Amino acid sequence: MLAPPLPENQTRLIALRGGLGSVPGVRLAGVHAGIKRRKRDLALVTFDREQLCAAVVTTNEMKAAPILVSAEHLAAEGATMRALVCNSGCANACTGERGERDVRATAAQAGALLGIAATQVVVASTGVIGVPLPLDRVQRGLERCVAQLEEGGKAAHDAAEAIMTTDRVPKLAAYAFYHQEKRYVVGGVAKGSGMIAPNMATMLAFIATDLPMQRASLDTALRQATDETFNMISVDGDMSTNDAVYAFAPVGDAAPPPAFLLAFRRVALDLALAMVDDGEGATKRLEVRVLGAHDEPQARTVARAIINSNLVKTALYGEDPNWGRIIAAAGAVKAGVDPARWSLVLNDKPWVDEGGIERLSEAQAHAELEQHEIVVEVHLGLGEAGATAWGCDLSRDYVRINASYRT
Amino acid sequence: MLAPPLPENQTRLIALRGGLGSVPGVRLAGVHAGIKRRKRDLALVTFDREQLCAAVVTTNEMKAAPILVSAEHLAAEGATMRALVCNSGCANACTGERGERDVRATAAQAGALLGIAATQVVVASTGVIGVPLPLDRVQRGLERCVAQLEEGGKAAHDAAEAIMTTDRVPKLAAYAFYHQEKRYVVGGVAKGSGMIAPNMATMLAFIATDLPMQRASLDTALRQATDETFNMISVDGDMSTNDAVYAFAPVGDAAPPPAFLLAFRRVALDLALAMVDDGEGATKRLEVRVLGAHDEPQARTVARAIINSNLVKTALYGEDPNWGRIIAAAGAVKAGVDPARWSLVLNDKPWVDEGGIERLSEAQAHAELEQHEIVVEVHLGLGEAGATAWGCDLSRDYVRINASYRT
Repeated sequence: MLAPPLPENQTRLIALRGGLGSVPGVRLAGVHAGIKRRKRDLALVTFDREQLCAAVVTTNEMKAAPILVSAEHLAAEGATMRALVCNSGCANACTGERGERDVRATAAQAGALLGIAATQVVVASTGVIGVPLPLDRVQRGLERCVAQLEEGGKAAHDAAEAIMTTDRVPKLAAYAFYHQEKRYVVGGVAKGSGMIAPNMATMLAFIATDLPMQRASLDTALRQATDETFNMISVDGDMSTNDAVYAFAPVGDAAPPPAFLLAFRRVALDLALAMVDDGEGATKRLEVRVLGAHDEPQARTVARAIINSNLVKTALYGEDPNWGRIIAAAGAVKAGVDPARWSLVLNDKPWVDEGGIERLSEAQAHAELEQHEIVVEVHLGLGEAGATAWGCDLSRDYVRINASYRT
Repeated sequence: MLAPPLPENQTRLIALRGGLGSVPGVRLAGVHAGIKRRKRDLALVTFDREQLCAAVVTTNEMKAAPILVSAEHLAAEGATMRALVCNSGCANACTGERGERDVRATAAQAGALLGIAATQVVVASTGVIGVPLPLDRVQRGLERCVAQLEEGGKAAHDAAEAIMTTDRVPKLAAYAFYHQEKRYVVGGVAKGSGMIAPNMATMLAFIATDLPMQRASLDTALRQATDETFNMISVDGDMSTNDAVYAFAPVGDAAPPPAFLLAFRRVALDLALAMVDDGEGATKRLEVRVLGAHDEPQARTVARAIINSNLVKTALYGEDPNWGRIIAAAGAVKAGVDPARWSLVLNDKPWVDEGGIERLSEAQAHAELEQHEIVVEVHLGLGEAGATAWGCDLSRDYVRINASYRT
């Protein structure tokens, strides 16, 4: 994995292997409930203490039932959460009123089994749209989850598997840090192996910490990290009916230290890049750094336009140094790019200078594109702002996977 | 070809085979100038009379040099055109100041050979971005074009071939109509075989008539037809650096009759659908009719969002009746769709009713999708407005073609 472009900081983060399971007080299980034919499809996460919960969810107008019901749970005055239920195999989206009833029933089942209120359960789903949730299987699956709940990496791995759809690998990330001589952890789990936007593949991420804090602090940390990570692998991070990122932390009074914010962003970035690397049919990772922009929104808009261009993605797959497609994508988004000022850098080598002057030969550029990890810098020559986006190539396997998703 | 959804009208249109070559007073040629290795790559079209010229061009900020220079020619007070030069194999985009110089030189070469002003020549290009135009080859090619100029379908076919890139077939359309007992023709030629947006494949179309009219009438006819045809196979029709539609008509005083507007729109629609059917790797045509919208902009936005969804396109290729992807695409674009009100109709059969109730079994829906031409109606249940968009599926061949476009 490339060194991520984090700000330099003296604060030492300790990488851990257990993902969400590395966070003290978190118990997990992942089982096969029978929503899918054979694979694990139901995850349960519980918290020993009451948790604040912050959310960033899809802005799609067809929000799935679990998004809507969980939002109600979170919106209650002083709400705290104690558990998270997530299934794969069925998105419970476009399922009408029945869909919402089924989410409430799921939360009630989990609450009864755990001895907590139904409104203290966050529910998330991913899978096929338009199919109702098989409630009886969820009920039996939850019973088995409760029996298997445990701390640690093995359980976290099972839970990570249970939320996968076309993902090839489970996605876990965790970092420990020290604050006032105490050790804390931020850990997370995610699913998402689509090319994400513009393709509406569901992205789910759950991040927790054992550092107590105020609600506003958790909310800010989640929003900032999402803008710089999950939203930079997807246009607005808001396309699917089921997209959601939930963050959990115990209730506290103190403002979190910089080390927490760093660890949180790092967990989010690791999870986001794991999704990019697991892109459906992906053979390469592309990092697009836009520099010299007027402001950050302009930089982000251009970076995401390039990352999301099918022509850029297919050229990358074919290792074709067709830089015109990159520039055409930058221009198409109408972000105020100056056609006379841009230049390109490929893997730290000057590629195309102002005025379209090629500095690398076609053969040289092709050789750079043979690498697995490609970094393209787009210098706009307009100001000082920048942004980074990450994506993958578009291969024939992407089409194969998505042409027969349900079969 | 499906019967296009034109308004019912008593006016009789007579379909002709010669495309632009069916228009009296138009002469054409298409030759191999050597910009490409083997195929025809340079077209010349001349008009016996002075022509008004209206244009709809890309809004991409990286407009190609021929777009910019031709816009200057058209912008001159009282400007009339006498010729059109179009090459394939080189987009002359992102070529800096040299690119514009090369367009002016091309126009000057054509003007000198034809005995007209350089500013009476429209220039268009399509092909690889970032490569300069080989002016000497263009010069020699223009000389051969001038020697071969002729009226009629054979020359129109040669010219249509000369502007192709990944197109598999030349695209021609022409209709005759009678007005005050005189016969007139609207004829056109186009290129474009990409999935068009979001993929920035260049779309070019040139449409001419022998019916004299005022400048404003030609302009209105072009804009209306473009909105309902070319822009409904592409997001805004404005993504590529080189996209352009030019319309030509002799100078006159009268307002054009309804028959002209019908014929013009029909030519535009035939050319647009020919592009859809020739989509790179396309195996199916999808027509999306959005009905019951608040207003036409809403209907267009939703129709285009569905047509442009990679997940919808791949499901179509796989004949997978995954209707959730259609609805998710409609919701993602944030056009004000009500999740409780939509319903779907597939090939005139009720498919999914309000509340997500399936009316066709999976097997029945799959059988409908086996057809080559698929029509999906999306009823929004909000009002009376509607719009239609056309697209194709996303196949493995699309990736193959675009991964190695230059090699």
